[in-house]
Amino acid sequence: MIDLRSDTLTRPTDAMREAMARAEVGDDVYGEDPTVTALQERVADMFGHEDALFTPTGSMANVLAVASLVAPGEEVLCESSAHIARAELGAHGAISGITMRTWTHPRGQVDLAAVESLHAPDMGPFFVRTAAVSVENTHNFAGGAVLPLEDLRALRAWADGTGTRIHLDGARLWNAHVATGTPLADYGRIADVLAVCLSKGLGAPIGSLMVGSADAVAEARVRRKRMGGGMRQVGVLAAAGAYALDHHVERLAEDHGHARLLGEALGLDPATIDTNIVVVERPDAAAFVAAAAEEGVRIAAVGPRTVRLVTHLDLTEADAQRAAAVLSRLAGR
Amino acid sequence: MIDLRSDTLTRPTDAMREAMARAEVGDDVYGEDPTVTALQERVADMFGHEDALFTPTGSMANVLAVASLVAPGEEVLCESSAHIARAELGAHGAISGITMRTWTHPRGQVDLAAVESLHAPDMGPFFVRTAAVSVENTHNFAGGAVLPLEDLRALRAWADGTGTRIHLDGARLWNAHVATGTPLADYGRIADVLAVCLSKGLGAPIGSLMVGSADAVAEARVRRKRMGGGMRQVGVLAAAGAYALDHHVERLAEDHGHARLLGEALGLDPATIDTNIVVVERPDAAAFVAAAAEEGVRIAAVGPRTVRLVTHLDLTEADAQRAAAVLSRLAGR
Amino acid sequence: MIDLRSDTLTRPTDAMREAMARAEVGDDVYGEDPTVTALQERVADMFGHEDALFTPTGSMANVLAVASLVAPGEEVLCESSAHIARAELGAHGAISGITMRTWTHPRGQVDLAAVESLHAPDMGPFFVRTAAVSVENTHNFAGGAVLPLEDLRALRAWADGTGTRIHLDGARLWNAHVATGTPLADYGRIADVLAVCLSKGLGAPIGSLMVGSADAVAEARVRRKRMGGGMRQVGVLAAAGAYALDHHVERLAEDHGHARLLGEALGLDPATIDTNIVVVERPDAAAFVAAAAEEGVRIAAVGPRTVRLVTHLDLTEADAQRAAAVLSRLAGR
Amino acid sequence: MIDLRSDTLTRPTDAMREAMARAEVGDDVYGEDPTVTALQERVADMFGHEDALFTPTGSMANVLAVASLVAPGEEVLCESSAHIARAELGAHGAISGITMRTWTHPRGQVDLAAVESLHAPDMGPFFVRTAAVSVENTHNFAGGAVLPLEDLRALRAWADGTGTRIHLDGARLWNAHVATGTPLADYGRIADVLAVCLSKGLGAPIGSLMVGSADAVAEARVRRKRMGGGMRQVGVLAAAGAYALDHHVERLAEDHGHARLLGEALGLDPATIDTNIVVVERPDAAAFVAAAAEEGVRIAAVGPRTVRLVTHLDLTEADAQRAAAVLSRLAGR
Repeated sequence: MIDLRSDTLTRPTDAMREAMARAEVGDDVYGEDPTVTALQERVADMFGHEDALFTPTGSMANVLAVASLVAPGEEVLCESSAHIARAELGAHGAISGITMRTWTHPRGQVDLAAVESLHAPDMGPFFVRTAAVSVENTHNFAGGAVLPLEDLRALRAWADGTGTRIHLDGARLWNAHVATGTPLADYGRIADVLAVCLSKGLGAPIGSLMVGSADAVAEARVRRKRMGGGMRQVGVLAAAGAYALDHHVERLAEDHGHARLLGEALGLDPATIDTNIVVVERPDAAAFVAAAAEEGVRIAAVGPRTVRLVTHLDLTEADAQRAAAVLSRLAGR
Repeated sequence: MIDLRSDTLTRPTDAMREAMARAEVGDDVYGEDPTVTALQERVADMFGHEDALFTPTGSMANVLAVASLVAPGEEVLCESSAHIARAELGAHGAISGITMRTWTHPRGQVDLAAVESLHAPDMGPFFVRTAAVSVENTHNFAGGAVLPLEDLRALRAWADGTGTRIHLDGARLWNAHVATGTPLADYGRIADVLAVCLSKGLGAPIGSLMVGSADAVAEARVRRKRMGGGMRQVGVLAAAGAYALDHHVERLAEDHGHARLLGEALGLDPATIDTNIVVVERPDAAAFVAAAAEEGVRIAAVGPRTVRLVTHLDLTEADAQRAAAVLSRLAGR
Repeated sequence: MIDLRSDTLTRPTDAMREAMARAEVGDDVYGEDPTVTALQERVADMFGHEDALFTPTGSMANVLAVASLVAPGEEVLCESSAHIARAELGAHGAISGITMRTWTHPRGQVDLAAVESLHAPDMGPFFVRTAAVSVENTHNFAGGAVLPLEDLRALRAWADGTGTRIHLDGARLWNAHVATGTPLADYGRIADVLAVCLSKGLGAPIGSLMVGSADAVAEARVRRKRMGGGMRQVGVLAAAGAYALDHHVERLAEDHGHARLLGEALGLDPATIDTNIVVVERPDAAAFVAAAAEEGVRIAAVGPRTVRLVTHLDLTEADAQRAAAVLSRLAGR
Repeated sequence: MIDLRSDTLTRPTDAMREAMARAEVGDDVYGEDPTVTALQERVADMFGHEDALFTPTGSMANVLAVASLVAPGEEVLCESSAHIARAELGAHGAISGITMRTWTHPRGQVDLAAVESLHAPDMGPFFVRTAAVSVENTHNFAGGAVLPLEDLRALRAWADGTGTRIHLDGARLWNAHVATGTPLADYGRIADVLAVCLSKGLGAPIGSLMVGSADAVAEARVRRKRMGGGMRQVGVLAAAGAYALDHHVERLAEDHGHARLLGEALGLDPATIDTNIVVVERPDAAAFVAAAAEEGVRIAAVGPRTVRLVTHLDLTEADAQRAAAVLSRLAGR
């Protein structure tokens, strides 16, 4: 079975498991786990920020990150199909007490005119204030679309002028980095706080990080504990993440190639496939998914007429070609 | 001084005060205040719903109403300048734990295509589900714009087909009713739950109501108590509301006429002034407001380049003409 | 029917209604209602605090008051039958995100040794910190018991030494003041923030106040708006409160005399009846309540074996004597 | 350095790391990780419950467990030094919106008379209802005290009679089981929902479980995702937990022996040391801790005059004897 439902499905490689088994560990609630401490410093450095914090999931990293910028009763603006809006079970409202307003872009892009129009300045104590804008790069539900650096820089300039902060949901920022060659530090520079994930394209079994200022991370450490994310010998997980950063970043280019192959098989313009996600409209998504499964290819319906495929570390070149052949046939091409 | 900052500024008339002074009262926490009970039944009947609940403010009525449709972790969709999004201090997130996504329309209208595109059906336990759509009629920050009944009916039909519920923020629904002649029951029919306000155009000093099913109201009664809205001898306020319903609904037509007069004075097309609110763009809103104040006309800047005027019960015909003359002169017309 | 279920049942007198009808009003959301502004200043002065804020209920005043001292994730200590713990529908947790721990005293008194033992100093970011102690004077569910000033002063001294703040739930503090002759300012001095109520013994139909520092009140004004408590022409209610302060404070002594009369009729030691509440154990509370109702005396079961009577403004001397006769007979005395 | 600060400090053994490295894994968000699924079933079976859910921390397991019994605005009763009250950063209030009231027992025991007295039955919609009682066995801040099974059974019987539910915080229930020989299923029987921890005495690096009915676990799975606890290839952690259950339960008896040794060295009655925690009063806790550290023994001050020692898997017999000698000397014995 070739599994293209998500890049979260990857299993740790033998070498990664070996790194986990050898990891030096300590109790991270006491701040004494050297492996996670080193990983946090390394990732903070990669993005040019002061500190980082390991979390069990990308959702927790996002919740901590947004809460570091937006107080209860304030609002964050984001694109309407952002992961923080659609796929974190409403935690930003339910746990953080934050309000959200959204703009819509078919490719999940920054629409600066929309942001400017939505932006609510501080109008006194009776109005909700826009505290932050959140962007997602690459954008999951927009088919792994990359947000161009120049758009992010324009947003940053606007944000600086209005006293607004920026959250970057970088669950798949590594893919954007590899696809465009944009240095990670350039992405770091446009955001006040980021969340990045080790367990999607990078292939670690568990783990994400929130990245930001020392103050924001110190405050997030308390919130993480309250949310039940204050784990103990985290080094066993951090070692997998460090291994992934050493070995699994540049190879994301292979995933992107596989995605283009699959996209072409489905009749899509390869220029619309920025990274490792392929989203295709099918009249009956569920039936198409079922037919593919019968041929040994698992894909996902993410809407009544929308099918999603995601390429990843566990997909070989041969797998990609076989899947492309199956999907091409099913798509009647 | 002619005060056009808001229709919340109206003072109770002598006859209304007399009604308050004569009101039969009891302890409403025990359900024993006959005046508020009668008012609740009367307003529920006006909209063809089972029950209603008196609240100290329209914000509380909206919070109770939305919470009766949307659970923590679920979402409500609304237009991006809706009162519930911008002017209730984020209560729907901070108190009710609800998530919001928005569409944008310059006149605050229902954009059914946008609603359909935003709508998130139940996709299993890991995605936020669209539980309700909220509409505001008339729409305050869109300049008192009326939402046409046919648009609301189309939304209702779509909602029925998708299992979505509808909240109608009717703080100024009386104005829509008078401006269009649409029966209140027709508005009631398109909403699962409404909030209406007695202290804006109707001129009562305090009071709003949530209107909905018996179950929704019973649940809201508990939430109202938790929010600190379980008042005692509420009849003294309900009597003002009942008086307002008897005497101040039809006369809203005068306010609408005054608003058109002021709009024309400011060079607006009167066809764009649906009810009692006039919103006009001015290059320097604050300076314009200050200049008007010097001439005895108080208006409000609701944005750096946006000025708002609201007509109401305490504004006489002569006041309206004097204000129109002042504003026309200041606008250089 | 003589109604002894609660002192919240009182109806405004004719003179109080007259004061309401004559009240000068304005829009208090804009800070322009002179009557409520004057009342807030007056009550702040009575307790020697900087400012006060009118609220629709005592519950809202308590929620705002405690939230001004205790952040989400911090704790307040209180006696286990305190109104804030038992009768505010869990708002301090559900809305303010506050944790509570409790000591138990049969008369609702401060148990300083228990407070000291419960007190959690700041032990770093992973432990809940005791931010405040809340006391209730008089104590409703402990039968209107007065908390002696010397105990409150000892608590204040301890609190100053440990950096703990004190909330005083003074819904019936007027009763304690009249019963003991303790100046209100002395009560004000032992508390960082207070809540007082106009609609219980004082007989106003609606209204309470939170009293504290200018900063605490400014912050509470925002929270009040978020909770839906930002009313408009509040002067109509504040006028009733001002009237009550002028005319209904000293007369609480009559209520206390009536309560002693009723307590004696039920075989209680009058020395245990501090103010206007009588709590008596009856083997079958519900049956006793029903029997009294048949004789024209309404009282309340507040537990399976606990009956409560409350005297108030609407109870005449003759009523009190008749009720005493009925209850004495039913109690088999 | 001999580290007695906590049993959370243990590092995974080589054999445990080997088990982790070999673990079969899948994506647990999709319910496809066989190792965690097997562990969940195994632990549910051990306690005679229907299902269990793996969580990154004991705090998250407790938050999910209590929230499965207690709705926002309802209350849980617990002993005043319970972990859920003192050491979970107020999550039960801040995240779950739950209210708490407490009784106090110097050994953290169930005080059934206190529970009965605190218990608030359903008194209608305006009072907080006692939904659950939480007990902690062994009780961390009461020095690892065991709660006797007969007391738990008496509580269960009372709870059944009143419709109250029971939460058992079993972070160290394994210690109680080994110390008393009480079958785990007997503990399971007295609780509606439990939390147990793999990363304290059992020595796993990360992991706890909530244990309860199939419905409660299904609901907790959603809440876990919202709290950011929905991890992916959890099998790498679950394998450590399964190894710990195979190899590290019975050996807790050694930890208990070491604790008695240390307690005697500090002059305590060994009969008061139920399991692996020793709490001792010292006039200057901080100085005593510092002196021990200089001699190579790390212990913790958990209060200004309270010192705590915890024995665990990484403490050998020789370590225990050396630590006992150091502490005995420092204690001036």
